[in-house]
Amino acid sequence: MIDGTRPYRLAVATRWNDNDVYGHLNNTVYYQAMDTAINTWMITVAGLDPLHGPALGFCVASSCEFQASAGFPDEIAVELSIAKLGTTSVTWAPRILRDRDDTQLAVGTFTTVFVDRETTRPVPIPTGIRLAIESEFAVPAA
Amino acid sequence: MIDGTRPYRLAVATRWNDNDVYGHLNNTVYYQAMDTAINTWMITVAGLDPLHGPALGFCVASSCEFQASAGFPDEIAVELSIAKLGTTSVTWAPRILRDRDDTQLAVGTFTTVFVDRETTRPVPIPTGIRLAIESEFAVPAA
Amino acid sequence: MIDGTRPYRLAVATRWNDNDVYGHLNNTVYYQAMDTAINTWMITVAGLDPLHGPALGFCVASSCEFQASAGFPDEIAVELSIAKLGTTSVTWAPRILRDRDDTQLAVGTFTTVFVDRETTRPVPIPTGIRLAIESEFAVPAA
Amino acid sequence: MIDGTRPYRLAVATRWNDNDVYGHLNNTVYYQAMDTAINTWMITVAGLDPLHGPALGFCVASSCEFQASAGFPDEIAVELSIAKLGTTSVTWAPRILRDRDDTQLAVGTFTTVFVDRETTRPVPIPTGIRLAIESEFAVPAA
Repeated sequence: MIDGTRPYRLAVATRWNDNDVYGHLNNTVYYQAMDTAINTWMITVAGLDPLHGPALGFCVASSCEFQASAGFPDEIAVELSIAKLGTTSVTWAPRILRDRDDTQLAVGTFTTVFVDRETTRPVPIPTGIRLAIESEFAVPAA
Repeated sequence: MIDGTRPYRLAVATRWNDNDVYGHLNNTVYYQAMDTAINTWMITVAGLDPLHGPALGFCVASSCEFQASAGFPDEIAVELSIAKLGTTSVTWAPRILRDRDDTQLAVGTFTTVFVDRETTRPVPIPTGIRLAIESEFAVPAA
Repeated sequence: MIDGTRPYRLAVATRWNDNDVYGHLNNTVYYQAMDTAINTWMITVAGLDPLHGPALGFCVASSCEFQASAGFPDEIAVELSIAKLGTTSVTWAPRILRDRDDTQLAVGTFTTVFVDRETTRPVPIPTGIRLAIESEFAVPAA
Repeated sequence: MIDGTRPYRLAVATRWNDNDVYGHLNNTVYYQAMDTAINTWMITVAGLDPLHGPALGFCVASSCEFQASAGFPDEIAVELSIAKLGTTSVTWAPRILRDRDDTQLAVGTFTTVFVDRETTRPVPIPTGIRLAIESEFAVPAA
């Protein structure tokens, strides 16, 4: 169980092919890591079912500032917190760290909007996911 | 030759594995496409040599707003323009389009800082690259 | 239209992040290219519908011999031919070439088995796809 | 320390974007996992230095048979053993398992040839790496 005072943290192993010619993780790997941490939390903690559930979570915006470099075989960790909880969307504020020493490598944002599986029109955040967010994270006042 | 009134445009073929379980290009593919268009331009037009040149171009920040979805086997196109030209860095403003009908799929930003290959400290944008940027793009006044 | 005497050929643009630290396309990019060429042909020529059709095509075996290296921003091309056409599966024999000069970079094999979307048990190759294969490729005698 | 009677095993976390539209890990992810396990072992156990060492390890051939499917957020594990140890090359025989229950998902082969960093011509396997292989793995008689 996670308490609301600590962000959710997930380690993500890097891969040989994550490094670019400069010997560093390519910038897109950080977005893969954010996407992976958010979806892992939504599937394993909050009950999102990407294959059969009525609502899907689409990324509508993201950003990242890259502050220090890392490279395979470093392990990185993603720490999730919430920047904004809206009616149909949630904006995450992931931090990416080198797992072994907690050096901060990058900070990002990642906005997930929930949509109806059939129409792909926005829908309210599913109740179970909203409750899980409110229970597990510190949610900023609107 | 590109004239400064038209953005540089590069088509990027999508791949089977770019689609996620929702049948759309994963959000990280858009960042791969921006990175590819910017590096293609810098290598083939502006003379960047990633393997042997004295200066390297590192991504220090990027962002993307996703406006419409596309999926393999759609071809996408990246149109580059310049948002800001600084002393050691350049901020690109890529647009991503569906190649066959020019539907705008996403708009992004991507900041490249130039660094010394040995020290990885920032250095002025190499002269040849700066001249190519000023020659090929409309550069906003500072 | 393709005639049976020439293999199907698809150009695949490479991406900045396809290169590994040695400045070459990572070996997994060649498998992405084979998978992309085969699925492009099956979707655009033979009528496979990955999202709604009754049968799906799963990769059950693949292999590749890497003979020469290439690197971004080289464009590569995949040429498809048929090594074996069975009842429920087809084995492709892709060649990968540098697009601009036809240097052979790699030769592979890739076996697609068709399965029922619901049960994922093997099913006969859908009639339309079998006819397209027989019409467009030289099929070795069993 | 690994003893020669047990293969080297490395867990590889899967990522959201590893799944294809069928909800399974794309076949190329298995090759990424093999490549990652082999390079992790060579760098962290056997002393390969991809950025500065005199010899590099290139993949010259690989293959995989896919026996069962897995999907994000499953964790997979790669078990390495040696199929053939030659003068300038080593052929690995990786098995890929679902980490939580050891279901065998795939078996592969992966041949690494060592080359001189400058000339990229084959060279004998570096002594430290050969000794590590002979010490840590059961090596089949030639």
